[in-house]
Amino acid sequence: MNAIPPLQPLPEGEAPAAPAIGVYLSSRLDLKEIFGEATDPRLVLMRPEEVEDPAAVICALCWQAPDDGFDAYPNLKVAGSIAAGVDHILSCPSLPADAVVTRVRDDSQADLMAGFAAFHVVWHHRRMDDFHAWQSRGEWRRTDRPAEPCETTVGVLGYGLMGRAVARAVAALGFRVVAAARNAAEGDPGVEVVSGEDAIGRAAERADILVNVLPLTEATRDVLDAALFARMPKGACVIQIGRGEQMVEEDLLAALNAGQIAAASVDVFRNEPPGDDHPFWAHPRVFVTPHRASDTSRHATVRQLADAVEALAQGRAPENRVDRAKGY
Amino acid sequence: MNAIPPLQPLPEGEAPAAPAIGVYLSSRLDLKEIFGEATDPRLVLMRPEEVEDPAAVICALCWQAPDDGFDAYPNLKVAGSIAAGVDHILSCPSLPADAVVTRVRDDSQADLMAGFAAFHVVWHHRRMDDFHAWQSRGEWRRTDRPAEPCETTVGVLGYGLMGRAVARAVAALGFRVVAAARNAAEGDPGVEVVSGEDAIGRAAERADILVNVLPLTEATRDVLDAALFARMPKGACVIQIGRGEQMVEEDLLAALNAGQIAAASVDVFRNEPPGDDHPFWAHPRVFVTPHRASDTSRHATVRQLADAVEALAQGRAPENRVDRAKGY
Repeated sequence: MNAIPPLQPLPEGEAPAAPAIGVYLSSRLDLKEIFGEATDPRLVLMRPEEVEDPAAVICALCWQAPDDGFDAYPNLKVAGSIAAGVDHILSCPSLPADAVVTRVRDDSQADLMAGFAAFHVVWHHRRMDDFHAWQSRGEWRRTDRPAEPCETTVGVLGYGLMGRAVARAVAALGFRVVAAARNAAEGDPGVEVVSGEDAIGRAAERADILVNVLPLTEATRDVLDAALFARMPKGACVIQIGRGEQMVEEDLLAALNAGQIAAASVDVFRNEPPGDDHPFWAHPRVFVTPHRASDTSRHATVRQLADAVEALAQGRAPENRVDRAKGY
Repeated sequence: MNAIPPLQPLPEGEAPAAPAIGVYLSSRLDLKEIFGEATDPRLVLMRPEEVEDPAAVICALCWQAPDDGFDAYPNLKVAGSIAAGVDHILSCPSLPADAVVTRVRDDSQADLMAGFAAFHVVWHHRRMDDFHAWQSRGEWRRTDRPAEPCETTVGVLGYGLMGRAVARAVAALGFRVVAAARNAAEGDPGVEVVSGEDAIGRAAERADILVNVLPLTEATRDVLDAALFARMPKGACVIQIGRGEQMVEEDLLAALNAGQIAAASVDVFRNEPPGDDHPFWAHPRVFVTPHRASDTSRHATVRQLADAVEALAQGRAPENRVDRAKGY
């Protein structure tokens, strides 16, 4: 990872004379409107139509770039995601074969993810939807004590920056936590990590509540399907805050309607926004949120893209570079 | 605390011949129905009308005992609460002056409390009520990134078993935590403890979200009042999971309607259940729950009462004894 030729060798201690030039690439969002105020002195970002000299563009900030989005920039070296996921960059046909792809690594985003996950774990564990419904009818009900947290297993699929934050937060609430990781890893206190073959299935089959925060790769596409739901304890709950393409939505619907899955929280969809007739909107046991589980900080996003460009200019590997073969 | 004369001296190593006799005392709940299956070989608990020899009763399991509830038992030595709070015992006119009063200390209850509090912190921080409402209308909205957890201060009033568990859980979600303690204490990682004069007010005035888990004492009665709400940052949120008598409900209503307090979660009320016309039921910015934030384990409750009786019999101070002067 360290044998990267300097992009733009600089005399030691000297700052670059001019900021690098980058382009916003998205077929879905107006990234300039979103990121325009997040400036970094090392970088100037502009819309494709604002670029005067495409050969000067050495980086891009991306969210679902157009299929031919990268074609115009012969010297592009860094394609940075605005998010933790990079699947949308790796699947772009025009991505240069030698471009470094980076993601955002944002502790504050991980905190948001952990809070969102912990919220939905408790929502399901304590049946908070019942309380909400009873309030609307003015009903005061003394329910039974809930299942002991220490006897309730929360499965966490994924154990990177996001998965670790989620697992730690849920463990701090006294739940048993089983996390599925691709590679063996030591768990934080209260977190058991399973890895290797069928790690996802082995975590899921113990999970009373399952939280998905896997990165999207060919190996994780459609991973939340009928077969996985069938392996889970009957009446388990599913919290989908990974990527929409990881869940077969009709399989979740069938599992909910059969009672195999008791309830779900769904923040990400295969098509966003889901159509008006999507069955989760009105499903009494699905909590739908509009892809808001977490968000990168705009400033962190732009700063980390500038960091990556600077690292390459100095012949270092950017910290947030992803392994293009692994897909994350 | 250790100079307690043995209640029933036993030859070393010898078990008591017969279990101790205790009585359920409550004007509100049928405790036998609730606790009847939580047996302990050291203790037989019965309803007052089942007691043949009142002089044989040496302990009581209590929840809002009748005013004259203790009068019948001349040899009663231990009055145990079914909960973490003991205010309902200390305020009972017939409580013998020399009775040891005990509470339940239940780590699993603390986990439940921590989960409930963390849930409501995120409910307010992320405006989850909006998501819930939008789902019901089929609306997919891209909201702004929420305030950074690390720039959002959660105040925790109380730093005993419950307060520490709550503070730890909220800190694990990346929030800044300021806890108010009666006595100086070292905070867990990420938790700042304020103590001494006006600790409650000093924690509240920094709190974007305030969680009350104080014990009820004369010093904490009515502590959540107009004056405290006025000291909080405008637009702060309040989570009331302590004791009903600690909040002046009409003051919260006024602060909500004036916008000083943006929203609240209320689990405990001055009168439970609150009347059908209680303004919180239908208030759009109050999440009402029916005193379910946490619950002691029935088995832990009975076991700890038996522990207390055994400790006294052996001349030791029961671990869960409260300081009657302090009130907790």
